[in-house]
Amino acid sequence: MDKRTTHAEQHNAAAAAEAAVESGRLVQVILAGGSGTRLWPVSREQYPKQLIDVVGDQSLLQATMKRMDGFAKTWDVAAQPVIVCGAEHFYVTSEQASDCGVKPCVVVEPARRDTAPALTLAALTASSDGDDPILVAMPADHAIADVPALHLAIDVAARHAQAGEIATLGVPPTRADTGFGYIRLGAQLQDGAHRIDRFVEKPAAELAAQYVASGGYWWNSGMFVVRASVWLAALKIFQPDMYAACVQAYENAKRDDGYIAPGADAFAQSPSDSIDYAVMEHLGKPESPFTGVVVPLEAGWSDLGSWDAVWEAMEKDEFGNVANGRVLMEGATTTYARSQGGRLVACVGTSDIVVVETDDAVLVADRSHVQDVKGLVSRIRQTNSPEADIHRKVRRPWGFYDSIDNGERFQVKRIVVNPGGRLSLQMHHHRAEHWIVVCGTALVTRGEEQFLLTENQSTYIPIGVQHRLENPGHVPLQIIEVQSGAYLGEDDIVRFDDKYGRCN
Amino acid sequence: MDKRTTHAEQHNAAAAAEAAVESGRLVQVILAGGSGTRLWPVSREQYPKQLIDVVGDQSLLQATMKRMDGFAKTWDVAAQPVIVCGAEHFYVTSEQASDCGVKPCVVVEPARRDTAPALTLAALTASSDGDDPILVAMPADHAIADVPALHLAIDVAARHAQAGEIATLGVPPTRADTGFGYIRLGAQLQDGAHRIDRFVEKPAAELAAQYVASGGYWWNSGMFVVRASVWLAALKIFQPDMYAACVQAYENAKRDDGYIAPGADAFAQSPSDSIDYAVMEHLGKPESPFTGVVVPLEAGWSDLGSWDAVWEAMEKDEFGNVANGRVLMEGATTTYARSQGGRLVACVGTSDIVVVETDDAVLVADRSHVQDVKGLVSRIRQTNSPEADIHRKVRRPWGFYDSIDNGERFQVKRIVVNPGGRLSLQMHHHRAEHWIVVCGTALVTRGEEQFLLTENQSTYIPIGVQHRLENPGHVPLQIIEVQSGAYLGEDDIVRFDDKYGRCN
Repeated sequence: MDKRTTHAEQHNAAAAAEAAVESGRLVQVILAGGSGTRLWPVSREQYPKQLIDVVGDQSLLQATMKRMDGFAKTWDVAAQPVIVCGAEHFYVTSEQASDCGVKPCVVVEPARRDTAPALTLAALTASSDGDDPILVAMPADHAIADVPALHLAIDVAARHAQAGEIATLGVPPTRADTGFGYIRLGAQLQDGAHRIDRFVEKPAAELAAQYVASGGYWWNSGMFVVRASVWLAALKIFQPDMYAACVQAYENAKRDDGYIAPGADAFAQSPSDSIDYAVMEHLGKPESPFTGVVVPLEAGWSDLGSWDAVWEAMEKDEFGNVANGRVLMEGATTTYARSQGGRLVACVGTSDIVVVETDDAVLVADRSHVQDVKGLVSRIRQTNSPEADIHRKVRRPWGFYDSIDNGERFQVKRIVVNPGGRLSLQMHHHRAEHWIVVCGTALVTRGEEQFLLTENQSTYIPIGVQHRLENPGHVPLQIIEVQSGAYLGEDDIVRFDDKYGRCN
Repeated sequence: MDKRTTHAEQHNAAAAAEAAVESGRLVQVILAGGSGTRLWPVSREQYPKQLIDVVGDQSLLQATMKRMDGFAKTWDVAAQPVIVCGAEHFYVTSEQASDCGVKPCVVVEPARRDTAPALTLAALTASSDGDDPILVAMPADHAIADVPALHLAIDVAARHAQAGEIATLGVPPTRADTGFGYIRLGAQLQDGAHRIDRFVEKPAAELAAQYVASGGYWWNSGMFVVRASVWLAALKIFQPDMYAACVQAYENAKRDDGYIAPGADAFAQSPSDSIDYAVMEHLGKPESPFTGVVVPLEAGWSDLGSWDAVWEAMEKDEFGNVANGRVLMEGATTTYARSQGGRLVACVGTSDIVVVETDDAVLVADRSHVQDVKGLVSRIRQTNSPEADIHRKVRRPWGFYDSIDNGERFQVKRIVVNPGGRLSLQMHHHRAEHWIVVCGTALVTRGEEQFLLTENQSTYIPIGVQHRLENPGHVPLQIIEVQSGAYLGEDDIVRFDDKYGRCN
């Protein structure tokens, strides 16, 4: 028996599992902390794959937020999902939620600690009002083609969760994929689910083929259904340090409307680990006071874990090609091509090739080598090239800017300020700025003056003069900014006042 | 006997051939009229491959202009080459010549008529002072690795030309290439040259293999060495209409320093044909008063007729890769990648793939399908997409502009004006312009005013106001132009005065 598991804790856990049967309330938990470099150059640290429309018209995060819509009415699904994401993605996460009519509770992780602490913060958040809901936890960056089939699986899993089990969704494999973890099935239950025998890591090709042939293994989808109190009790037993750090961080949290920022110092003390390693792998052991079940998910699931997986997940033409954006195929077969930056991408006679074009980088990969993209990004990072982590287009709380040109002593940006958006009151030591409004209306602060500029008007901000740009209107404001000076780094900025708290 | 060949003409030709022995003067003729769509997207109608640094640091045209440097002193090589090019490329051709210290005589073709009329205009130009030099004609868009070996071949060819022969350089084949024409060898001469038996068109793969195995065929390099009078006499016999049209066009020419513009109306009457078809194919016939020889050229010659040929012509790394510009290879082999627009291009696990990135288009092609690029460009042209023929960066006599951004009612350009360059005095009906100088000094005419602007200064040109931009300085002037208005087409321009004659 695990030394850390005392009899008293076992008793607590059993009691929690029993209490769990009382509530039929579900809370969707979206784990949105990934950095997704395997879909570089579209996905980068600064703007990772869950925020992007990798498949379909909306971002993967948005598709995930809408994934519980229309769920069977026998369950009470909370209107407010809990999203756990990195601090640097809070504004865009909120914006994307607002765009699709969702008002989430966003838990901002002060540091990256993998999925187990993330789910723990979500469990504490979802049960903070004294309720003990069933958490339906799912990564923000997967695709699921058949949502009704997902709902059926969640329904089955929730019944088990209601009975105190920790349920996970497993995907019956369709090929010997080496990119997934597998779950070895235990005894089959009446509703098609299985007891979990054990979790196994990504296998080599031969082993994966054996797993698939045996019929006794399913892919680990990374989706979990568990009562909040059961999760917390299990974590307390299996990972007491993590539990303590998360509870402390949650107690120290700053809160605002739809926003929770757990205490950074306490959270920093938490070990980093995944749900699989921290808890699920312990379930099969004889001494575990908790048990797990795996529910089959046959819903066109994909983790979109590589450009090959993206190609797999999308509809193809008669030659097996997928074209996204301004793409021309000439004699190409089984080719995936995406024009993200808007340039014309032409594929001639290619086969099993992935082409991804962005504003500042182009990836061309053989489909059988797409797993090497991750290593490539590390190599780019080592050369201090910005393309590893940062896009040319940079999102800010007030909108975004795009660096459209630069030369020895100048730089040109297009700046788009959302209605109501307001840049910080700032000053530069080394550059002057010319602003030309090309769309909308700007409220400009320049030294002691304040004035409005409309389309086709311009102003000049000399070096050392305090200034601020805001959009007082109802349509996005677009300006062209021409910076002129000897040093044009982003760090030449002195902020005096900022609506978004960026002065400190 | 060809009905058009009279006895008198035969006599004339023979006399010309005899006269030819007298002069040892060589004139390099550069045929620079190609449009080179097979190297799209780098090479386009508006700025074709000879103007681009496809291999090495200088453009192919510049490399061609320097190709007679250091030629053996037994011949008197004229310092001024004759370049025949399209009118739209006159300024950039002159600029490139000037950049490498060459003062050519540029013959501007009023229309495209293939190489035979081009060589005819060059022959008339080179012999206009009463001299009868030997023309050394070469396409502007080929690569030759071993220039001393080329010089040896030209020396042999020139001796034959001096004796009244029409000589061509043939390349002993190293593979069964189906992209070239072949020359069937006749009797061998003492100096390694052969009589020309006949020219054969690009063969199918099987036939090409037979040609190469037989040892009796060489590739047709497209380079010719012939006395001006011999060429003209031969053309008069074999293509009397072409001869008459070219002579008339030459007589009607406008001339300036280093510039000849043959009469457009007369030239339009000329049939369009290549040197091969118009003259060379007739040489082997018994009734021909002229004979031809083919001189072996073993000098690392390439016509750079496809991206595969470019890959072949360049130095490779240990994996057979060629990287040009900001390129990263990760597990790639036999891959050619070129970053022309400056974006990072990453090739992961690719093999036998060509990747060419430019400002507005990306080509990815399997090396075995690069001949299909030509068809692709036709398809793009059919959709009226500018990427078929025009680059984002547009060259003008005064410099260039680059369209760096655009939106619904605005457009942003970077304009670079060469020292002494001067845009036309102009006016727009539908757009206002903001100019910000980011490098150098501008002389601005705006309505009745004229003033200087230096770095970090700006001005505004309202709709309907006459204006002009010039660079009075000694360094390139760079400005950022922000256009604002409802219609931003290039055709909204009324020109009042233009240094480069573009008012009409």
